[in-house]
Amino acid sequence: MNPSSLEGLIEALRCLPGVGPKSAQRMAYYLLQHDRAGAKRLAEGIDTALRAVQHCVRCNTFTESETCDRCTSSKRDPTQLCIVETPVDMNMMEQAHAYSGLYYVLMGRISPLDGVGPRELKLDRLLARAGDGIVREVILATNYTNEGEATAHYLSELLKSRGIAVTRIARGVPVGGELEYVDSGTLAQAMRERRPLV
Amino acid sequence: MNPSSLEGLIEALRCLPGVGPKSAQRMAYYLLQHDRAGAKRLAEGIDTALRAVQHCVRCNTFTESETCDRCTSSKRDPTQLCIVETPVDMNMMEQAHAYSGLYYVLMGRISPLDGVGPRELKLDRLLARAGDGIVREVILATNYTNEGEATAHYLSELLKSRGIAVTRIARGVPVGGELEYVDSGTLAQAMRERRPLV
Repeated sequence: MNPSSLEGLIEALRCLPGVGPKSAQRMAYYLLQHDRAGAKRLAEGIDTALRAVQHCVRCNTFTESETCDRCTSSKRDPTQLCIVETPVDMNMMEQAHAYSGLYYVLMGRISPLDGVGPRELKLDRLLARAGDGIVREVILATNYTNEGEATAHYLSELLKSRGIAVTRIARGVPVGGELEYVDSGTLAQAMRERRPLV
Repeated sequence: MNPSSLEGLIEALRCLPGVGPKSAQRMAYYLLQHDRAGAKRLAEGIDTALRAVQHCVRCNTFTESETCDRCTSSKRDPTQLCIVETPVDMNMMEQAHAYSGLYYVLMGRISPLDGVGPRELKLDRLLARAGDGIVREVILATNYTNEGEATAHYLSELLKSRGIAVTRIARGVPVGGELEYVDSGTLAQAMRERRPLV
């Protein structure tokens, strides 16, 4: 019914999270009819990002250099390491202005149903990072979802067995909530009230 | 906070309809972390479609050739011309298997609030198409929204003044619809536009 290149675009748009067949069709028609310049910029933006964006060797977040600006900053406290699931969570934490240490971004969470275990998260890298002799406290700031909790529990066992002090951000974050959608006041409170895991 | 190429991608994703800052960020992270192959296909799909897809010179729908397959088909009745707002509407009409004439796709609707008037819709082309001497009936199948109704009204005045017969698709209770759940506006119209049973 549609030309094949249009069908191809519709199919390709479905790689975006939360975009089903109807949305993809609407997006494709919109781009071709109303925003060809925007579409061109999008294709270029994807190409550029795919070429430039890699993972920081220290904190695992997205960066364009080998080590990200935050990890090389002298203004951050290197004795604290906050573990988050995603770069979005890290940005949210930064916007809460309650933490000045360093981060480690898991880029996911332990989720057996999705086939994501400790191996897929490459926790070896995290253990090496946390055990560098400078880090005094690891703060677990994974989501308070089931998967985030399981991840925190698993990590705390792993880290404590290596003699590293582990804390967890306070349960000020609503149960079942995700950091990305919590207001920064709540998040700041949760950071301040982090408690030792016993 | 994010690397500039990542920010660029997030900004570029916002050209997609219905995608705000949060969704764009989520999409960008998802593509870079979980589906770089899909992202590459998306960039290529956009490029290919931008190069290949143009408008049919007869019916104005998307096509890869000068004239689309439907307009060149000998199986369609050239005396009927159905006017729809979008290619999606045309596809829906085709799936209803109740029409075998030709189409004209407006690629929009008259909507003064969005700055879309007769000039933006290039209605000159439609008038030339409808006045080719072969078309006997123009069927207005724009949506029954305020904008669609305004468009149908405007077009019917324009076409009738040129001596072209104009009809409008029926309005009423949907097939399978229950009166209990139909809005009163629709029901009032269905009552006013009741037709004799033969």
